[in-house]
Order: sequence, then structure tokens, then C-alpha cells
Amino acid sequence: MSSYDIISKTKNGIELTDEEIRWFVNGYVNGEIPDYQLSAWLMAVCFNSLSDRETTALTLAMCESGEMINLSGIDGITVDKHSTGGVGDKTSLIIAPIISACGAYVPKMSGRGLGHTGGTIDKLESIPNFKTELSFERFIEVVGRAGFSIISQSGNIVPADKKIYALRDATATVDSIPLISSSIMSKKLAMGADCILLDVKLGSGAFMKTEETAIKLANTMVNTAVNAGKGCRAMITNMDEPLGDSVGNAIEIMEVIEILKGNKKGRLYELCIDLSANMLEMAEKGNAEECKKLAIGAINSGQALERLRLMIELQGGNPSVIDNYSLLPQPKYSVEVLAEQDGYIAGINSEEVGLIALKLGAGRATKDSEIDLSAGIKLNESVGDYIEKGEKIMTLFSSMENDFDEALNMARKAVMICQKQKTRKPMVYNIIY
Amino acid sequence: MSSYDIISKTKNGIELTDEEIRWFVNGYVNGEIPDYQLSAWLMAVCFNSLSDRETTALTLAMCESGEMINLSGIDGITVDKHSTGGVGDKTSLIIAPIISACGAYVPKMSGRGLGHTGGTIDKLESIPNFKTELSFERFIEVVGRAGFSIISQSGNIVPADKKIYALRDATATVDSIPLISSSIMSKKLAMGADCILLDVKLGSGAFMKTEETAIKLANTMVNTAVNAGKGCRAMITNMDEPLGDSVGNAIEIMEVIEILKGNKKGRLYELCIDLSANMLEMAEKGNAEECKKLAIGAINSGQALERLRLMIELQGGNPSVIDNYSLLPQPKYSVEVLAEQDGYIAGINSEEVGLIALKLGAGRATKDSEIDLSAGIKLNESVGDYIEKGEKIMTLFSSMENDFDEALNMARKAVMICQKQKTRKPMVYNIIY
Repeated sequence: MSSYDIISKTKNGIELTDEEIRWFVNGYVNGEIPDYQLSAWLMAVCFNSLSDRETTALTLAMCESGEMINLSGIDGITVDKHSTGGVGDKTSLIIAPIISACGAYVPKMSGRGLGHTGGTIDKLESIPNFKTELSFERFIEVVGRAGFSIISQSGNIVPADKKIYALRDATATVDSIPLISSSIMSKKLAMGADCILLDVKLGSGAFMKTEETAIKLANTMVNTAVNAGKGCRAMITNMDEPLGDSVGNAIEIMEVIEILKGNKKGRLYELCIDLSANMLEMAEKGNAEECKKLAIGAINSGQALERLRLMIELQGGNPSVIDNYSLLPQPKYSVEVLAEQDGYIAGINSEEVGLIALKLGAGRATKDSEIDLSAGIKLNESVGDYIEKGEKIMTLFSSMENDFDEALNMARKAVMICQKQKTRKPMVYNIIY
Repeated sequence: MSSYDIISKTKNGIELTDEEIRWFVNGYVNGEIPDYQLSAWLMAVCFNSLSDRETTALTLAMCESGEMINLSGIDGITVDKHSTGGVGDKTSLIIAPIISACGAYVPKMSGRGLGHTGGTIDKLESIPNFKTELSFERFIEVVGRAGFSIISQSGNIVPADKKIYALRDATATVDSIPLISSSIMSKKLAMGADCILLDVKLGSGAFMKTEETAIKLANTMVNTAVNAGKGCRAMITNMDEPLGDSVGNAIEIMEVIEILKGNKKGRLYELCIDLSANMLEMAEKGNAEECKKLAIGAINSGQALERLRLMIELQGGNPSVIDNYSLLPQPKYSVEVLAEQDGYIAGINSEEVGLIALKLGAGRATKDSEIDLSAGIKLNESVGDYIEKGEKIMTLFSSMENDFDEALNMARKAVMICQKQKTRKPMVYNIIY
């Protein structure tokens, strides 16, 4: 076996054996195979792709490069969830409490925001004293007691991904379906849950811009999970406009709490109920209709909110934020964006909104950027609404003393106003089993 | 400008500017751009190729990475020649004396053998005391006096190629037309000759196995030379059977001398006359027919042989080898390969013959292998000849005490005998201007 032959095979469209893939990944992680050979192979994969079998072998080899969590101590079905990343995507923080209130367990490792997309870990860290780094023992304990726990990426989980991703990031080899899939799924498999729900975002604010590639990615990930003996579903969901009416960190925590209190309905709420119902079905809590009722009931009864309160407490955070939002980081400055004409809102470009949030300090330009947890955007109108000239469309918040001119300019461009009301696209495009 | 953007552009089929290519090559040579970014780009080039303009820019950027030879001191037209490498390919050693006898100059840098192909430098080093490493001053002096000089690759000429080639060799990115072309042409341009003749070998013993790729490579190289302001022609020539009747080092020097003495005609002789005539035409020595006569005359008059004698002397070698072949390295052992049946020789697989020579010690398995200058193969029959069972087809020579069994076995397989005489393919398939 040689790296040269492996690169050459993939380049010439010849399938690799599972042994070759394992040998190559292990050799790279151990430092025996140099970066320049892996990057050449990664580029060949971008052009020739990998078969589902090869993708599974790659995923498992990466998964086995580090610690794998043993959830056998948890007395119940465990369900993990992954979102491919969006703007205003706070669904995990709503869904995990719902699922645990319904008797299943959600052991979840989440990421930080980068570029125009936010990260669940950043949002949680806006809760005073909340700890996102727990030992695996403590993590499993919190899952057992609160029904869910959300922690940040640990370097011990899939070190291969960390190393390979950094190389992909430097060599323009990020956008390959089998490579994206193996990066996501290796971490999901290492987390050890029985079932996995994949929320594949599609639209302007998502990494997947076409339905075709979103479905391809979803199929690849579901096949990998099934090949690895897991239950799995993927939902292709709408990311053309921001999710909910807030984008940022502390500001999104408030929206999560409002939804769990039952104070807020709408498209984000509906999506969370749909995602939750699919997870509960995989967790064998009933058929589709029953699971939907269970999810709605978890909010109406206040049990989901109590799960969130308990989890915050167990992870060292101040649960009083639930009743007193002023305990969250408060922005020093705010600016309103007003409509420049009458008309219907035809679209709110979510990628643009994500970039405004980045500009305001709510996001990270690079992995090492500091973020302003109080910064963000509050949308007052959504797609389809009629608006009059001078009415408020959104408010921009920040604690940084930069001027808001550029953000304001971007905000005006992000909202399209037209004279005819358009039908809004559905939130869920497709479910892949 | 960033390496990431450059990789990404080529990956997405977007042409690079000349500035981008120059910046990327310089950055790599200076060590500012890491191997893993270049190797990813090289793989993208293997898939998406480069335009002729991009290939020219790459070639010039590589060329300018090191010393460039100034031939302005030579009072006459300088013509360089490159062969893409073959088995028994001693044409440079025959042509350069012919050209110089006809009043043009050949300043030539040659390579060593690798794998199944031989190298002109190895062949020359079988002449006792012959020096293939000269200072550029001395090199130009020898060209001026003998009309030609052949030296080995200097690290000062196109260091970019040395570095990039090593990376291609380790990342399965060797077989890309623009990369092959830029590697060859950057060195040719750095040598500074007015015109270049490219001998693109096609067939079993060549790197180019199909006429389509040979023509593509030839066109790319000719375009690069013309874009760089040089005269250039490429000839696509037959490499299905070994060139001439000897394969090795000392043994090929003897064949060169026999041809220059006028003692030997045949297909190799004819090819050398054709190649020489094309070079003389570029050097403005007359029309096609006149140049052919000039080349033939240079052999018949003995002037070409005298040029070789002078060049050997000026490069420190013993010119008496011309009159006394026993001064060349002599093999200790020899074994005859006999025909196992009656019939016509339908083919002699030149790649196989090259591998036999390698086995006997005449070639290099890796760049650092030692070679046996006395080893080689003498073919007694050629394609189209009728042979009876038990007659000698070839003789294998070596000074290594290994047993000849494997080489013998390979030799029997390399020769195909059939019952009907087949028409032989021409030596020159195509000329590209």
C-alpha cells in the first residue's frame, strides 16, 4: 500500500478498498503521510467524488481516530441532531428540551459560528457562567439528569477531522459532498447516539445552494449512518430567509425562551415541531401524528422550558435568565432600519443578514475572532408582510463603537420590497430516510 | 492575490492571469507557499488542464526562477533539441555532430535515465574521463569551438522545475500535458537557443501512448515556444520498437560512432537525418531537400564524426574510443536469446526491452540507483525479419553477477513472432509547426 497508489486510484476513478482508506487516514493522523499527499488526494476527491462505501470507510476511519463516547449508561433512546448551519438557526436549543421532555435523550456536541453562520455554542455562552466544556463523565451525567446536554467540540473527538478540515480550508477542497459528509458524520458517530436527525439547510444562507446538492449530501450522510448501524433521517429545510426574528447570540437565546414559554408561534416554531416529531419517531415514541402532538404538548405544558432551566443550571449557567432577560449581555447601541418605500417584503436574503451580524460583531470572520455576544439583529417584519415607507424593518444592535453606516447599507440591500405579495416557500422541502 | 483563490479558480475552470501564475510559482520557489497548496493546485490542473496562455505563463515563471544562459557570444544560429524519452534513443548524440558540421550550433543540457528509458548523460559518461558537468562559461566555449556541447542538468537552471517535479512525482500529478510541457519547455527556454526541435516519442516505449495525447503535448510545447519568441517544431516519432540495435550506455556510444562513420544505415539513421534536416531548416540552412542533403553529407564527409571527436576531447574524455571500442566499459557476462520458433518478427516491445536493460543494470530504478555502464542489449534482428528456431534474436550483457533468468524470460516475452510479415509503421508520424 502506498499513498501514491491511493492518490492515483482516486484520480483515475478506481474505488479504494476499506483497508486503503483506513491506512491512509491513520497514516495522515500519525504524521507519516505528509499534507501535500493528502491535499492532492482531497482535490482528486473534489473531482471524482467517492462511492457511498468509500465515504462510509472514510467516516469510520476518521471516527476511530479519537475518543468515542459510550452512552450505554443512559437508560433510554439517544437522538442526536445536526444542522448544516444557517442564519438565526437556534433550532437545537428549542428541540433538545422538547425531546428530553418527551422521554428521549439528546447528547449533543455543537460548533461555533464562522463567517455568516452562527453557532449554538456561542449562543449558549451568552448565558452568564454557562460552561460549554465538560468532561465526558459530566456530560453523560447532565444528559442523564436533564435529558440533554450541549457541549463544544472536544479535540479528543475525531482529531482526524480537525487536521483534515484545516487542510481542506487551505486548499479549496471544502465543497465536496463525501468530504463534507465524512466530516459531519464522523463526529456524529463518535458521539454514540442511537439515531441522528440531519437538518440540511438549503437556500441563500446555507452552504448548499441547490436542491440537487442538498439531496445528494443528505443521501450520502443517511447512507453512511445506516451503513454504520444507526437510525437516521435527513430533512431538507428552507434557509432563504433567516430563521425566526432574531440573529445573534444573546438575542437568539431570548427567542428560544419565548418559544419554549409558548409565547411565540410562526415558521420557526412550526419547523421545530416538525424536526422534533421526526426525532421522536426515530426514538420510537409513536407515529408521525402522535409525535407531533407530544412535541406541541412539551411546550404547552412548560416541561420543555423546565428541561432547559435544569440543563442551564447543571452546566453552571444562571437559570434566572429565563425569567429576567436583562441578565443577558445588553448591547450599548442600536439603529433602526426603516422602509424606503411601501410594498410587500419579497425576500430577506439570509446570507446578507448573516454578514450584517458579522459586521456588527455577532459573528467570526476567522476562527480566532472575538465576538460581541450582545450584538445582533431583530427583524420586525418577515417575508410576505406589507410595509409602509418609514416603518421599521429591523433593528441592529452592537456594543462596538464602530459606525453603523456599512451595516445599514447592507441591511437596506438585504430586504427586497415589491408591489405584489408572493407565496412563501415551505419550511420543509424533503425528508430523506 | 491568495493561493486559496488561485487553487479555487483552477478547480472551477477559471483562467488565471499571468500575474497570478508568476506570484504562485515565485511564492512556491521562495518557500512562502507550502507544498500542500501547490499539490492541490497540481491535481486541479490534472483535471481541468491549463490554457496555452496559462501554460506559457507557467513556463516563463519557472524559467525565470534560476539562471538563464546567454548565448549571444556565439556567432551563428543555435538549435536545441529535446526528446520526450525512449528506449535506445541515442539520436541527440548523432544529430548534434551533424548540425554542428553544417554550421549551426547545439547547446544542449540532457538528462539521466530513469525507469525503462535511458539518458544521454549516462551514455556519455561511459566514455573514460568524459565530464558532463561544465561551468556555463566552459559550456559556451565548447559550443563555440566544437559546434555543440552536451552537459547534465544544473541545479541553477530552473530550480522551480526540480522542486515542482519532486512534488508531482509524490502526488500522482505527473501525467498532465501543461505540466509536462512547462517542465520541458522551461528548461529549453532557459538554455537560450534560437530554435528548438521537439522529438515527441509515441508508442509502447514512450510516455505518450496515444497519438492524440502526443499531438496535444506537441502542440502545447510548440505554442509555448512560439509565444516565447522562439522557432519551434515538434516531430511525433515511432517508439514502438527500440531505436537502433543497441540499448544501454557504452553499447549505444558504439552504435553512434558506427553511424557517424557511415558504417550503418537503417531506420535509426533515417530518423536522425530527418530530425537533423528539420533542425537545419529552422537554422536557415536551406529548404527541406537541401537540408537533408547537408545532413547526409556531414556523415559521408566524416565531418560529423570529427565534431564528435573534438567535443569529447574538449569535455575531457578520451577521443580514442572512436577508433578503439575496447576503451569503453566492457561487460563481464553475456547471454544469447534464441528464437523458440520459426517466423517473422511482428514486434519488439520497447518498454519491455527498456525494463530488461534496467534489470541488467543499464538503467535506474530510482533517481539514486547506481548503473552498470557496460550493461545492455544488442538486437540481432528487427521487426519484419524472418527468423528460424534457434537463431539468435538478441544478446544480453551485464557486469553484475546476478543470474540472467528473469531477464531472459522477459526477453522472450518482448519479442512477438508470427507467420505473416507485417508492414512496419513509419518512423515519423507527424510534424507540428
